[in-house]
Amino acid sequence: MNNPIITERLDRLRQVMRENGVDWYLVPTADFHHSEYVDGYFKVREYLSNFSGSNGSLIVGPSQAGLWTDGRYFIQAAQELEGTGIKLYRMQEEGVPTLEAYLAKQMREGETLGFDGRVVDTRLGQRLEKALQKKKIRFSCDRDLADAVWTNRPPLPCHPVIVLDEKICGETVEEKLKRVRKKMEELGAAGHFLSRLDDLMWLFNIRGRDVACNPVALSYAWITKTECHLFLQKEEMTDALYAHADRYGIVLHEYWETADFLSACPIEGKILCDAGQISYAFYRLLTNRAGLILSQNPTERMKAVKNPVEIAHMREVYEKDSAIVCQFLCWVKKNIGRLPMTELSAGRYLDDLRRSAQGFWDLSFPTICAYGPNAAMMHYEADETHNSALKDEGLLLVDSGGQYLGGTTDVTRTIALGRISQKMKAHYTAVATGMLRLMNARFLFGCSGRNLDILARQPLWEQNMDYKCGTGHGVGYMLNVHEGPQSIRWRFAKDAPEAEIEAGMVVTDEPGVYLEGEYGIRIENVLLAVNGEKNGDGQFMHFETLTYVPIDRDAIDPSLMRQEDIALLNRYHALVREKITPYLDREQAEWLARATRPI
Amino acid sequence: MNNPIITERLDRLRQVMRENGVDWYLVPTADFHHSEYVDGYFKVREYLSNFSGSNGSLIVGPSQAGLWTDGRYFIQAAQELEGTGIKLYRMQEEGVPTLEAYLAKQMREGETLGFDGRVVDTRLGQRLEKALQKKKIRFSCDRDLADAVWTNRPPLPCHPVIVLDEKICGETVEEKLKRVRKKMEELGAAGHFLSRLDDLMWLFNIRGRDVACNPVALSYAWITKTECHLFLQKEEMTDALYAHADRYGIVLHEYWETADFLSACPIEGKILCDAGQISYAFYRLLTNRAGLILSQNPTERMKAVKNPVEIAHMREVYEKDSAIVCQFLCWVKKNIGRLPMTELSAGRYLDDLRRSAQGFWDLSFPTICAYGPNAAMMHYEADETHNSALKDEGLLLVDSGGQYLGGTTDVTRTIALGRISQKMKAHYTAVATGMLRLMNARFLFGCSGRNLDILARQPLWEQNMDYKCGTGHGVGYMLNVHEGPQSIRWRFAKDAPEAEIEAGMVVTDEPGVYLEGEYGIRIENVLLAVNGEKNGDGQFMHFETLTYVPIDRDAIDPSLMRQEDIALLNRYHALVREKITPYLDREQAEWLARATRPI
Repeated sequence: MNNPIITERLDRLRQVMRENGVDWYLVPTADFHHSEYVDGYFKVREYLSNFSGSNGSLIVGPSQAGLWTDGRYFIQAAQELEGTGIKLYRMQEEGVPTLEAYLAKQMREGETLGFDGRVVDTRLGQRLEKALQKKKIRFSCDRDLADAVWTNRPPLPCHPVIVLDEKICGETVEEKLKRVRKKMEELGAAGHFLSRLDDLMWLFNIRGRDVACNPVALSYAWITKTECHLFLQKEEMTDALYAHADRYGIVLHEYWETADFLSACPIEGKILCDAGQISYAFYRLLTNRAGLILSQNPTERMKAVKNPVEIAHMREVYEKDSAIVCQFLCWVKKNIGRLPMTELSAGRYLDDLRRSAQGFWDLSFPTICAYGPNAAMMHYEADETHNSALKDEGLLLVDSGGQYLGGTTDVTRTIALGRISQKMKAHYTAVATGMLRLMNARFLFGCSGRNLDILARQPLWEQNMDYKCGTGHGVGYMLNVHEGPQSIRWRFAKDAPEAEIEAGMVVTDEPGVYLEGEYGIRIENVLLAVNGEKNGDGQFMHFETLTYVPIDRDAIDPSLMRQEDIALLNRYHALVREKITPYLDREQAEWLARATRPI
Repeated sequence: MNNPIITERLDRLRQVMRENGVDWYLVPTADFHHSEYVDGYFKVREYLSNFSGSNGSLIVGPSQAGLWTDGRYFIQAAQELEGTGIKLYRMQEEGVPTLEAYLAKQMREGETLGFDGRVVDTRLGQRLEKALQKKKIRFSCDRDLADAVWTNRPPLPCHPVIVLDEKICGETVEEKLKRVRKKMEELGAAGHFLSRLDDLMWLFNIRGRDVACNPVALSYAWITKTECHLFLQKEEMTDALYAHADRYGIVLHEYWETADFLSACPIEGKILCDAGQISYAFYRLLTNRAGLILSQNPTERMKAVKNPVEIAHMREVYEKDSAIVCQFLCWVKKNIGRLPMTELSAGRYLDDLRRSAQGFWDLSFPTICAYGPNAAMMHYEADETHNSALKDEGLLLVDSGGQYLGGTTDVTRTIALGRISQKMKAHYTAVATGMLRLMNARFLFGCSGRNLDILARQPLWEQNMDYKCGTGHGVGYMLNVHEGPQSIRWRFAKDAPEAEIEAGMVVTDEPGVYLEGEYGIRIENVLLAVNGEKNGDGQFMHFETLTYVPIDRDAIDPSLMRQEDIALLNRYHALVREKITPYLDREQAEWLARATRPI
């Protein structure tokens, strides 16, 4: 099966490449800020390849094209690339070259590699420099060649900025800036260029709507010991923002003038910026101005450690959101086989419950409601053309979350819609066990997610099975559903930060099973890291769950569980009942009582 | 209480320092090869400080002195430093400066730091350079100032080298050199300087006796694409060695001529050497000759992955050695309270059992036989002045091993000599559980010891307790009892290699509890990593135990164990019974049957 739309687009791109003296062209998936989700304007890779996942890089050569993506998308990418002539490269699989190794092998001496330097991050840019220097490859990185190819390209997003009440932030911009400047001093930096949107929003206690599901505004900041410059699209600035900026001595500038400003402003000393987060274009600009200190944004870790005000709001929001998911699960369980239901309609039912909740802003990501084999695709999204009808059998995976005034949520439950196979039960039980064990981990301060990951994975590894993704990620506060620096995974990409888990950090716990063509299982709670006893051996820590939604007893086979793990499940279910019952009507409460009864 | 011997020695050192224009003097614990155990000649730090542990660095300033050591030795060092005026710095504890940070703070601008460059490793030398450059500290590193202070210094060790039969090595020198040269080519190295003794012994299929318990000879090697030069003390060379060298084209040189040779030999290209293993003196010499590729010795990982011949021999040797430990435990259990016993006499009983075994060469380290509070010192060694009598109560910890033709062993058991407290039982049970869980880990290739460590530690962390050391280390084959690159620990020193566990690697599994002034518990098995199923999710792996010695049921409280963990214990004990019974007489066999009966 051929995909003439894509092959024609690639032909046109190759034409533009030739006109510009570019032999190979690289299209990563990023906006100018390396946001995880990107707005329509930035979906060049999807436009050119048909692959719609959230992570992937396209390479177009004179006669070949390849797409690199990670384990979450292997199945989906294979489907979407069909007929495009684009070859799929499964990242981290044995024998699969990295894209820079691929280019180093394929490109001929003296050829030119093109890419838009604003959407390539510095680490990738540097890796390309290193890999391609031997062959004397030239870079052409100041043009977005796809712009000429892409007819009807959506406009750059632009929405008014929201200024948050400090009562809900728990810390003023002044206090935050003070902490950032202290860190700059420690690192010996005279200036700090900040381009990561969620860090910017956190630091300035503002929010935006320029990225779907991410409450962020396209922006940059330049901070020195005494000055603070914030760059936003003029149309996004409101009276409240002007007043806010005035109050904290923030100078506002037009977003498009950032590069000009940075080229001209006085810089006395080194510049702190995050190599993993600034674009290669800004990296090259700043390198010409001063020495760079490539380190994590100080804001990243500050933002990750929630303050008591944030934690109090999150607890409340998570209870409310958990109750909504319970109501949804009750509705599905009661009506499956009676009412017609599809992935889309069920997902919309859940979305509507959230939308009607007090303080709701937006979904924190597009709801994943995936039935049967669709759930084997980790980030499947149903649409009008892919929308399975739900039947009273098999497994349904629902991964969803909301942006509320007071917190960002993320929760996954997989449930049996009727009879399921023994194999499904065995896998479901292993996933539930892994989730519970990690949730109940006891550890010492100093541990990163790499130390803890095996607790979630061991029940699956014992069955010679794995899931090809991390076990958990940080979650923002009225911000991105994925945030760093902490994460729970058993191996890290080279150079990837591996942050210690600190009290106040919030992290997901979401092991899974994904069997291509069969089914997918994921169970996800959000956990808050808290301090326990501190003694001569160190600061002991554990997690407190923020999520209170039952794990489907219908899908569990207790005979496969250890007594201790059954006790963990029963204890969790008792907590769910206690916390969530007050939010439910009588019928729902009765359902919850049954769903959480001890094994 | 004053220690006049040490204070007088320090006074003399300070005198020599003044004569040599040295303001501060650093004495690490190392021979010229950074062996873990050092021969008498190299025990300068012990001579000057009285601290006899295997790891520690002494800093002597104009009027102050400090000793840095790790968690294994906190208790012992505090005792041994009493009255010396030397302050103990507990490494990795909160608020304790590293020695380079300490020097950077204490030393005054333009002062001179002295040390013997041959016994300081390059990483430390570089850290010192970096930390002290701001204050323009000069290094005086070409003299061993202690030599003038140390009267009656033992001579440098010198014993004939043994050439091993290739049947017991499983791989010829030719094959090994070929692999090393291939790795050199991959790394772009024209020459390779090898100074680590166990790597040298492995590569050349030779052994020596220049370090207590380590079957190594003082040596260096210089390897190019076509040449191979081996440096040994002339007096160590035997006819068999000359023939062996001749056969494999190895040119033999006098040990003391290494530096002169390296200063003059032709070098065309870069030199591969291990920054963590060559001395700062050789680092400076080689840096002046060519560019350095600072990487792990290729031999380190090759040596760590045992070949089938080595594994077959080790299995046999470990059974035999386990049987000896079983005989010893049986003897202690039967005779405690009847025969007079001390730490030393019991340890000697065990050592004598080993010495009479076929193929025995040496102990693999001095036997640790530690009773009651003494066992809280991880590396306690009884001697004539510290030698507790054993009574029929409390816990006895015995950590021991042998060097045999066919393998190096390492095993620890802690046993109840009579009544023990409920607290001891609880801790013993947690340690046993942790040991068993790690031994039964299922994991994916790609895991390092950092991923696995929590399995051993979780039962203790659940009780807000920790042990201040790693959980496991690699074990050599007729070589050092501690070898890398693999290790099992939850955190690694910065820059420390963190090797993936590979099939054929051998690693210890030895969690513990150490309560100062009360007791110590350690249970240690040696595990062989083996491959299990390989499928789309990767290469699954698990461990096979090489050690077959009962865990003391008298010290276990089964009511504190999960059913699953009890099953692990019973399964292990059944294996012990099966493997070891054939080595025992009837009385011992009856004891073993009781000691391993199911719970």
